[in-house]
Amino acid sequence: MALAQAGGAAAGATVYVSLEPCAHQSTRGPACADSLVAAAPARVVAALTDADPRTAGKGFDRLEAAGISVMRDAMAAEARAGLAGFITRLTQGRPHVTLKLATSLDGCIAMADGSSRWITGEAARAHAHLERARSDAILVGAGTVRADAPRLDVRLPGLEAHSPRRIMLGSGEAPKGWDVIRTPEDIAGLDCNSLIVEGGAQTASAFLRAGLVDRLMLYRAPILIGGGRPCLGDIGLTDLAGAHGRWRLSDARMLGPKGVDGDRFEVYEVVACSQA
Amino acid sequence: MALAQAGGAAAGATVYVSLEPCAHQSTRGPACADSLVAAAPARVVAALTDADPRTAGKGFDRLEAAGISVMRDAMAAEARAGLAGFITRLTQGRPHVTLKLATSLDGCIAMADGSSRWITGEAARAHAHLERARSDAILVGAGTVRADAPRLDVRLPGLEAHSPRRIMLGSGEAPKGWDVIRTPEDIAGLDCNSLIVEGGAQTASAFLRAGLVDRLMLYRAPILIGGGRPCLGDIGLTDLAGAHGRWRLSDARMLGPKGVDGDRFEVYEVVACSQA
Repeated sequence: MALAQAGGAAAGATVYVSLEPCAHQSTRGPACADSLVAAAPARVVAALTDADPRTAGKGFDRLEAAGISVMRDAMAAEARAGLAGFITRLTQGRPHVTLKLATSLDGCIAMADGSSRWITGEAARAHAHLERARSDAILVGAGTVRADAPRLDVRLPGLEAHSPRRIMLGSGEAPKGWDVIRTPEDIAGLDCNSLIVEGGAQTASAFLRAGLVDRLMLYRAPILIGGGRPCLGDIGLTDLAGAHGRWRLSDARMLGPKGVDGDRFEVYEVVACSQA
Repeated sequence: MALAQAGGAAAGATVYVSLEPCAHQSTRGPACADSLVAAAPARVVAALTDADPRTAGKGFDRLEAAGISVMRDAMAAEARAGLAGFITRLTQGRPHVTLKLATSLDGCIAMADGSSRWITGEAARAHAHLERARSDAILVGAGTVRADAPRLDVRLPGLEAHSPRRIMLGSGEAPKGWDVIRTPEDIAGLDCNSLIVEGGAQTASAFLRAGLVDRLMLYRAPILIGGGRPCLGDIGLTDLAGAHGRWRLSDARMLGPKGVDGDRFEVYEVVACSQA
């Protein structure tokens, strides 16, 4: 599309791409590397080499063979983060999974009686809706569906149409339009790049036990509940040493008021994931 | 001591003090305001007005009456934080109480079987020892004494002599050299300015229920435990709205390695405390 828009102006220009131009044809059209060769730019700057074995450097080779200067892996780490869904699906055959937890300082997601409105403030809840809009699908457990009947939509002006597919984990009847899977492993059949797991504690724990969480997205309110419902149940940890070295902080900031009631937002990426 | 060291050099100089010079005599010697008038500096810069009714501005008045220029409350917020123990004891008749919690991301202080070595890393544990050295006293519950037989000393080179007084909350025999109190309210009789409550969960909850926590000191390791022992039990919260607006973040940083296993350190100051 960019080349079509640029027309003759592409010749001799520099082209910036977030991923290596593919060397293979797909149902979507000709190989991008061939289209670029035809457009004849002077230079291509690519953030990341494609992990797809059908390309994997062959796209760059084809450009260079045509006399185009190539800068490879210009921003590999950033591109890997931005393309996490695509890469996880390609290398592991399942969507990239983000587990979202919104807790009090003492790690509770609700009071003992179940009340959970609200733990976090407006800005944090709006941020969570933005993350939903960026995800292909969103999943909650059957218990949460029955207890809360959550809408799981995006309630942000202008982004309503970006509400993700809704998935229920477990058995029983799902609301109209929802998909149902029986086990965390069934996400392999979902045909999507990214999934947010939003709870409850049992569902979150099942994904962690299965080693199927790539990213933790934590919202933490500056409140204490005490004796409330914990955000996680058994995740299969057998000794404390085994809990260390698994998560790397990749983002941390405040959401909402700077003063007394701002929420903390933190993202942790999995370290010890099994790469296919 | 500073005036004695300065001798004649104090005359005409500027004197910086963290608290208003007292207008009252004490067992420690003459009123500081009188000593300053005798030393005849040109100016006194004071961080904070003394809340003690025997001084409370009278110290400044005496300096000004002697022709000394005075800057009052130059850094009131900083001085209040630094003098929190003194001020809390003066205004509320009890030590300033810090509750320390060291948890996993999901708010646990141990695995279900009680193992808790280690949640946080070396740097965080050393930092906690430094905080002990800054405190007059440190308290744990009788259950923790029986289960862990903690030493509660300062194990930092050069600071071993700064180990605080050790206090046990509850009944039963305390280790030799420890003091025992029966209820959180009994801290009023401890004759000290600052106290760190180090656990366990029952003791922490008892202090929160009693409204006797001025400061939360949170160490949070980048690990998940899942189904572990929560850091708090019932703290008397009856509805979620009541949990908000009580704590204000005053410090936040990382301790230890910048990479995968650094711990988060956060300090929250109480907002809704009852000022005498």
